[in-house]
Amino acid sequence: MRVEIVAVGTELLLGQIVDTNSSWMGAELAAAGINSHYQTKVGDNPARIRAVLEQALERSDAVICCGGLGPTQDDLTRDVIAEVMGVDLVLDAEIEARIRDMFGSRGRTMPENNVRQAMVPVGASVIPQQPGTAPGLICPIGDKVVYAVPGVPYEMKEMVTGTIVGDLRRRAGEQGMIASRVLRTWGMSESGLAEVLADRITELDDGGEATLAFLASGVEGLKVRITAKGTDAADVTAKLDAEEAVLRPLLGDIIFGLDDDTMEAVVLRRLGELGLGLAVAESVTGGYMAGRICAVPGASKVFRGGVVAYTPEMKRSVLGVSAGPVVSEEAAMEMAEGVRRLTGADIGLATTGVAGPDALEGQRPGTVFVGLALPEGYESGSMMFRMPGDRERVRQFTTISLMDQLRRRLG
Amino acid sequence: MRVEIVAVGTELLLGQIVDTNSSWMGAELAAAGINSHYQTKVGDNPARIRAVLEQALERSDAVICCGGLGPTQDDLTRDVIAEVMGVDLVLDAEIEARIRDMFGSRGRTMPENNVRQAMVPVGASVIPQQPGTAPGLICPIGDKVVYAVPGVPYEMKEMVTGTIVGDLRRRAGEQGMIASRVLRTWGMSESGLAEVLADRITELDDGGEATLAFLASGVEGLKVRITAKGTDAADVTAKLDAEEAVLRPLLGDIIFGLDDDTMEAVVLRRLGELGLGLAVAESVTGGYMAGRICAVPGASKVFRGGVVAYTPEMKRSVLGVSAGPVVSEEAAMEMAEGVRRLTGADIGLATTGVAGPDALEGQRPGTVFVGLALPEGYESGSMMFRMPGDRERVRQFTTISLMDQLRRRLG
Repeated sequence: MRVEIVAVGTELLLGQIVDTNSSWMGAELAAAGINSHYQTKVGDNPARIRAVLEQALERSDAVICCGGLGPTQDDLTRDVIAEVMGVDLVLDAEIEARIRDMFGSRGRTMPENNVRQAMVPVGASVIPQQPGTAPGLICPIGDKVVYAVPGVPYEMKEMVTGTIVGDLRRRAGEQGMIASRVLRTWGMSESGLAEVLADRITELDDGGEATLAFLASGVEGLKVRITAKGTDAADVTAKLDAEEAVLRPLLGDIIFGLDDDTMEAVVLRRLGELGLGLAVAESVTGGYMAGRICAVPGASKVFRGGVVAYTPEMKRSVLGVSAGPVVSEEAAMEMAEGVRRLTGADIGLATTGVAGPDALEGQRPGTVFVGLALPEGYESGSMMFRMPGDRERVRQFTTISLMDQLRRRLG
Repeated sequence: MRVEIVAVGTELLLGQIVDTNSSWMGAELAAAGINSHYQTKVGDNPARIRAVLEQALERSDAVICCGGLGPTQDDLTRDVIAEVMGVDLVLDAEIEARIRDMFGSRGRTMPENNVRQAMVPVGASVIPQQPGTAPGLICPIGDKVVYAVPGVPYEMKEMVTGTIVGDLRRRAGEQGMIASRVLRTWGMSESGLAEVLADRITELDDGGEATLAFLASGVEGLKVRITAKGTDAADVTAKLDAEEAVLRPLLGDIIFGLDDDTMEAVVLRRLGELGLGLAVAESVTGGYMAGRICAVPGASKVFRGGVVAYTPEMKRSVLGVSAGPVVSEEAAMEMAEGVRRLTGADIGLATTGVAGPDALEGQRPGTVFVGLALPEGYESGSMMFRMPGDRERVRQFTTISLMDQLRRRLG
């Protein structure tokens, strides 16, 4: 089973949007043991979309066509697929009613343009998942198939995981699997990791049952990905387990989680186990840390809240920071204690520093101080980090570094 | 002059790396008035790389092939291009010496593998910029050309801006420019916009001097992109100005900015002009709004800070929200007034609501209340929104909707 991905949209060619959809689909297909040899981006031009689709159908067994299913005139995917199938588009009354209901439930009337989205090529079936107004389509062409999915990432993802991957595996019959496991790490550089793992990588290159790759991922940390092939899920899992068992002693406590574990999720889980409440006081991270924490489902069980104290006055009046520099270890510690007091949380974390581009209080950009106010029995304290990079990277690295400090102190 | 981009690397197909290189090149080419109709990703497989290159040369005048120039055995681009050219690879002694020097200057000996990087197809020339060990190549094939550049972004970028764009323009002879301008909007759906602009789009399709496209972009709002071609920069600018002048009366005050203007930046700029300070109290947005605001350079001139009040207790103790539901218009208004009082800012904004997946206080996910506490002479108030989508989209739409309310009230 060879599947090809076609992403439709002039904005992709012009670089106004980066095509992350194809990358995500490529990863999902690989994880399901499905090969994809080509990914093509093409603009909103019917002749070129058609040429790309026809070629993809020649050299592959299935095509996932992403984008161009919206309600406007430059949404051409439906029309082109019908042409390739050699059939007409007909109005699907059920889909039209569904779209009208979506608008109705928000107290709005459906614009007549959206009727276009209910047009379906004769012989195509509709993908059951429909989180937005655009329905996904399964369009058989001879013994091959074109799937059409919207370009809105969460809509596309629901359809791919809910329907398309399973449909492709059924069409492919039994076959091998590929799977990956990611060891999430923080505390060692990419080249440091490469050195620690060099011997193991050489062993694996000489005929091991897995491969390793590193990926520096900002606030997501540094990922070590193990990939293995096998006959079935149990076989692959056994190989991934075996390799993880080899790597854990080499990497030690820089591993904070697996796969989709974020640092925040790991720390919140541990706080939940310990029954400890968390609050944060942010200056240099400006709400970014609270935002990361609140993005974890169930955060409200542990997270009390926070203060974004962007001015020196607010640090003093709300958090009780004493006179003196506000970009310092002392100020970070006072902010951490202040937010802990203010919110009644067990733990207060704080960040202050210089995001750049200008220096502040004589400290150069990238200089960050963090404070951790912990309950008795745990180690409170403050420390300085020097971060590389721009404002965004300073916020990200500060957040993961401080959360990692808390993780290590919770044991 | 039609140029095609081919990105080589199995890691791109597997989604381990997102292909941002092609997007960046597409934007550079468009800015230089060069059309690119297709972008293809292909794995490290010589037959498939060759097939993609040959097809690209059939339908386009030039190909930029990115990646596969490293020193390892799965770096195949050089070999495949030589095959397509029908020539041998020969060792370029000058490049070999340059690579040896690079290693030498870091106190290291060049691994013998890297000699591969000094192999050049007969008839190809070397791109002068060479920031890394991989040289870029200009490979003429008949009256067409293949450029080979490394996949390391900063190396690729130096070669594209330093050599390739100029070379393409010379090959194309004199020709026009293409440029875009984005009208940033909030307050109308994508299909609503399409309806309002339908007649204008039809006029432009019948031979206008510009094209229009819409792009829904989450917290970035809904973008209306005008694209025009012209003989030179002044000509293109005049056409963009003319089209903007046609669209402004049709769209009215839903336009909040142009090009890279974010809603936050526009609102902060206006607050700066008015000399008003801002503070935010966040529940459902959990720090996301403060994070967006602080990401604007110079935010500290206007932004005082904020409170993330994630629990009902913190809403009451820190912000003074009275007994009763905390997911309500009244609570949103009290939060806005509370944070204004706490920080001494002129303006307090607040969000409370249900991010989902579960209901809260009988309110269903996506229900959001916002409050705006403004100084005398401006309209304070609260309102309810119903947001579509997941937690992330609820946070994004709440933030841009509330900031837009503030924008409208500032006049």
